[in-house]
Amino acid sequence: MLKDIHTPEELRKLDIEQLKPLADELRTYIIDTLSTHPGHLASSLGTVELTIALHYVFNTPDDRLVWDVGHQAYAHKILTGRGEAFSTIRTYGGLSGFPKMSESPYDAFGTGHSSTSLSAALGMATASRLQGNNSRHHIAVIGDGSMTGGEAFEALNNIGVSKANILVILNDNGISIDRAVGGLSSYLTRMTASRGYNRLKEQVWHRLDGTHGGRRHDHSLGFFQRMTSTAKTALLGGSNLFESLGLRYFGPIDGHDIGQLVDMMQRLKEIPGPKLLHIVTKKGKGLRMAEKNPVTYHAPGRYDAHTGQQLKGSSEGQPLKYQDIFGHTIIELAEQNPAIVGITPAMLTGCSLNMMKEVMPDRVFDVGIAEQHAVTFAAGLAAQGMVPFCNIYSSFSQRAYDQIIHDVALQHLPVVLCLDRAGLVGDDGPTHHGVFDLAALRPIPGLTIAAPMDDHELRNIMYTAQLPGKGPFAIRYPRGASVFTDWKSAFCEIKIGEGRIVRKGSDVAILSLGHPGNDALAAADELEKQGISAAVYDMRFLKPMDTALLDQVAAAGFRRIVTVEDGIRLGGFGEAVMEYFAEKHPAQVDRIRILAIPDEFVTHGSVAQLKHDCNIDKDAIIAAATA
Amino acid sequence: MLKDIHTPEELRKLDIEQLKPLADELRTYIIDTLSTHPGHLASSLGTVELTIALHYVFNTPDDRLVWDVGHQAYAHKILTGRGEAFSTIRTYGGLSGFPKMSESPYDAFGTGHSSTSLSAALGMATASRLQGNNSRHHIAVIGDGSMTGGEAFEALNNIGVSKANILVILNDNGISIDRAVGGLSSYLTRMTASRGYNRLKEQVWHRLDGTHGGRRHDHSLGFFQRMTSTAKTALLGGSNLFESLGLRYFGPIDGHDIGQLVDMMQRLKEIPGPKLLHIVTKKGKGLRMAEKNPVTYHAPGRYDAHTGQQLKGSSEGQPLKYQDIFGHTIIELAEQNPAIVGITPAMLTGCSLNMMKEVMPDRVFDVGIAEQHAVTFAAGLAAQGMVPFCNIYSSFSQRAYDQIIHDVALQHLPVVLCLDRAGLVGDDGPTHHGVFDLAALRPIPGLTIAAPMDDHELRNIMYTAQLPGKGPFAIRYPRGASVFTDWKSAFCEIKIGEGRIVRKGSDVAILSLGHPGNDALAAADELEKQGISAAVYDMRFLKPMDTALLDQVAAAGFRRIVTVEDGIRLGGFGEAVMEYFAEKHPAQVDRIRILAIPDEFVTHGSVAQLKHDCNIDKDAIIAAATA
Repeated sequence: MLKDIHTPEELRKLDIEQLKPLADELRTYIIDTLSTHPGHLASSLGTVELTIALHYVFNTPDDRLVWDVGHQAYAHKILTGRGEAFSTIRTYGGLSGFPKMSESPYDAFGTGHSSTSLSAALGMATASRLQGNNSRHHIAVIGDGSMTGGEAFEALNNIGVSKANILVILNDNGISIDRAVGGLSSYLTRMTASRGYNRLKEQVWHRLDGTHGGRRHDHSLGFFQRMTSTAKTALLGGSNLFESLGLRYFGPIDGHDIGQLVDMMQRLKEIPGPKLLHIVTKKGKGLRMAEKNPVTYHAPGRYDAHTGQQLKGSSEGQPLKYQDIFGHTIIELAEQNPAIVGITPAMLTGCSLNMMKEVMPDRVFDVGIAEQHAVTFAAGLAAQGMVPFCNIYSSFSQRAYDQIIHDVALQHLPVVLCLDRAGLVGDDGPTHHGVFDLAALRPIPGLTIAAPMDDHELRNIMYTAQLPGKGPFAIRYPRGASVFTDWKSAFCEIKIGEGRIVRKGSDVAILSLGHPGNDALAAADELEKQGISAAVYDMRFLKPMDTALLDQVAAAGFRRIVTVEDGIRLGGFGEAVMEYFAEKHPAQVDRIRILAIPDEFVTHGSVAQLKHDCNIDKDAIIAAATA
Repeated sequence: MLKDIHTPEELRKLDIEQLKPLADELRTYIIDTLSTHPGHLASSLGTVELTIALHYVFNTPDDRLVWDVGHQAYAHKILTGRGEAFSTIRTYGGLSGFPKMSESPYDAFGTGHSSTSLSAALGMATASRLQGNNSRHHIAVIGDGSMTGGEAFEALNNIGVSKANILVILNDNGISIDRAVGGLSSYLTRMTASRGYNRLKEQVWHRLDGTHGGRRHDHSLGFFQRMTSTAKTALLGGSNLFESLGLRYFGPIDGHDIGQLVDMMQRLKEIPGPKLLHIVTKKGKGLRMAEKNPVTYHAPGRYDAHTGQQLKGSSEGQPLKYQDIFGHTIIELAEQNPAIVGITPAMLTGCSLNMMKEVMPDRVFDVGIAEQHAVTFAAGLAAQGMVPFCNIYSSFSQRAYDQIIHDVALQHLPVVLCLDRAGLVGDDGPTHHGVFDLAALRPIPGLTIAAPMDDHELRNIMYTAQLPGKGPFAIRYPRGASVFTDWKSAFCEIKIGEGRIVRKGSDVAILSLGHPGNDALAAADELEKQGISAAVYDMRFLKPMDTALLDQVAAAGFRRIVTVEDGIRLGGFGEAVMEYFAEKHPAQVDRIRILAIPDEFVTHGSVAQLKHDCNIDKDAIIAAATA
């Protein structure tokens, strides 16, 4: 059945009885495909019935559908003409792992970062109203995890008083990527458990339905509207959180009961204005191992399509991931320094703070999807003598840019920002590449910015950052494997702003920041075979920069100076080096070649491919050194 | 009485009957002082009784007190040893207009931007708990306007499930700077109007009080706790918004009844865990004209201390403020282009969008303090064919950095960001200087970044930005007066990325971005008197930069090239010029002198003084040109 559906229009021709078998087929297709083409599995399994119901009831793409975050939108991609291409998802040149306006007219708004869908949908609904279109529907699908992001609340505060024709679907699975945390999550659980509120709602529906069969009828709407506005407090036993803000609340209903979903949405279509439907789903639905371990199966890699068993390549003899070096190291440091605490906005497992959470549960704080709060919370802790390590994925730290400036740096508080997933992240693509951090953080006064070249360096920089008097500190490191297998080195303080020579040479100098130093070393080895002697300088710090080392480079009279970084060029490391030379060694600026991410958004694909495209890989270094 | 109180400790020796006369005296002192030393008047008048009650009941500075935003903390400054210095507020070398950790131990956390206090206080409370101090109190005072900022919600979501000993005081005056907007504001109004909820609370208090006189007693607390957790829904007729999130809610009470405030706080001191007290105050309280016009009297400038009448210097013959040029111009453009809408996060009057709101109320959106939402909302509008002008103060736009990258630029949507208050803002100081925008925005692919040199340029750039196909656009302009008195010029399209020569010359080239071009012109005039011929290039665009014009500058063979900007140096305009020359005209880099804000936070004071300190004023240009 699935292969005959190329557009939602074809879907809408099905009988309602056909939807459940279609859901089963769709789910199987997702499970089968992702077993060999890794992607975000569990979220998409949870929204199969929802997706079918939405496209069945609403007139997409004229009705606008916005998926918050978007990694739950795989069924949506398959049902909107991308079923055949689905196995290319997240591969170079293939489908994006997230909704993308340029990929399909059914992707009404691109997502990737959390908590934007309500604002975007309100913008669209407002545009429709101003354009005189009062019949178009605007739907935002948002998880309970994403709902904790401040932007979602800002949007709710505006949606509630708007006249926008907008339906918020709260997809409540109790999970963000790790288990959802906070007052909102507890509240939703209580609400779902309480039947009283729900029963009253059902009576109201019954009244509405019994008279008019659920179809639009002004009189029945009049009754309903009167009920929800003035009488609701008395009838429904007090307003709930969403109704407090002015949205009409419906639910909770079972998000896997496709009949109920379709029925409910058909009714909601008839109700103008802002409303919220609370559905309860199971992340990983339909694959038992994923249902049991939704955190692991968020993006499980390859697995057996029948059993769900993950197929892991042997990692024996491989270096640990940088995130695990962080995870192990913060525990060691915290054992020595009782002031250290760990903070993560909803990436407890992703950043490996789960390790510390296990052994020191009181000193690790998963604050939910809330990067702004995470940073100011860290500043508050630091203001009172603690040393918080606040771990945020580089691209998500853009959410806390003001807090880093205003709450941390301006007050010179010793917060240690650990920016994981810095540089090119690969499959997740442009929304997730951590390429703006260097340029964005460099202008902030008093902030130390370090990028370790390997696991030992990461450990030493973390050790250094927590020593007294170091002030605000950012440490950025990439996704994936570090360098050594014997990662557990003794701690050693690094002088702030001090780079190092990792390879001596006389013809060419390669100046690197962070992990790309390893490509620089590999390039130097190849250059040696070509008879070119290349020195490699691991600058370690973007700020303060080791100007004494730069003077040394200038004095050595290299015929070529190559800088390499995995951040965007404008305002980044290479420019900082260039700017210093222009000021102090102007005669040598024409020897400098800057290798950095060019001034464009980088697509998704393997990191190796993207590094090649961006001209920052080993070959690019060799070419720059010899050109 | 006031002049005998140098510390809160002395305040705490007063009898409770003395507090009201003290409040009157304090209010008079604020009104008198600010009548000749301008500052944030109305907010501070609204919190006089609250401030006295807080310091009277709590053991500051050991108990931690965080003022959200902080412009309501003048009474706090006066009562904490800064009464004599109060007349120096917001002047160079004098008191800061905001709480500042380095200014006083009573300023537990520096503020300035909105909605940070809850996160900071939770950080402090968490630190106290980890440090084994279970008796310290942590109080955050936040306005209903600030409560709409997403970060406040992120914090509430965490506070509710914490065991933190934290008291949130919701200072509800229905005003942010303009009138508060949104669902939360309506909700608070309904809550205040409804007596039923309040009566039930009173009964509970009575029960607690009648038995144990309001003092800590485990048994009574046990009763209370049981009540608020399990039985509250039944007893109190449904939970409210804050209780939904896990905070115990108290109030609303009259925030000007000092007896009730003291009484309530003494009781709340005995209740451990997170709680919220809702007080209702009048912004501008005690000065009739300020009570009637709290928006105008937010920061009224000089006024008659008795009548409140504002004393305005004659503005006849003076240029309009840039914000008013924006305000007039967007109306003209919107009359021609029906796709244009205006968006402001709570700065309707401050950015002069109130003008458009008056004539086109449906096309102007004040979204409350919600910069993140403002930008994504704009992106949603743009995705559906509208041309949103989203006006945000430069330093507040740091809050929306991720949204500018992820929602606007990545999708290449035609959102026009108008960044008002760019550059040095003067009296408000380091939290408010708009000096990071150029460096932060420059790395964003596909974003056009313009800075008009005068009113005509602002009009033309705004005109250009709304033409079809221009993509994401940022226009930044300063606080205060523009240049011409005949501002109303005909619109003229400016080619994207095209600078202009505003003064010809042969010895020296001054390259400026934005308003500092006027200092460049003045410097050129003086240089001419010294026999030096200086050309002035108004580059207009930071991005894309007019490289053809730079080539022209290079070809002309000036003996000195000076760049001047009112943004931070690192990653900014001067570096961009330097970087281009290093690449294309390396032989000339040693002729370049960059004038920009140095790598440090700039204090408060007059703009002229600060420009002098930062070495970016006319004299600095002359010095750089002749050195």
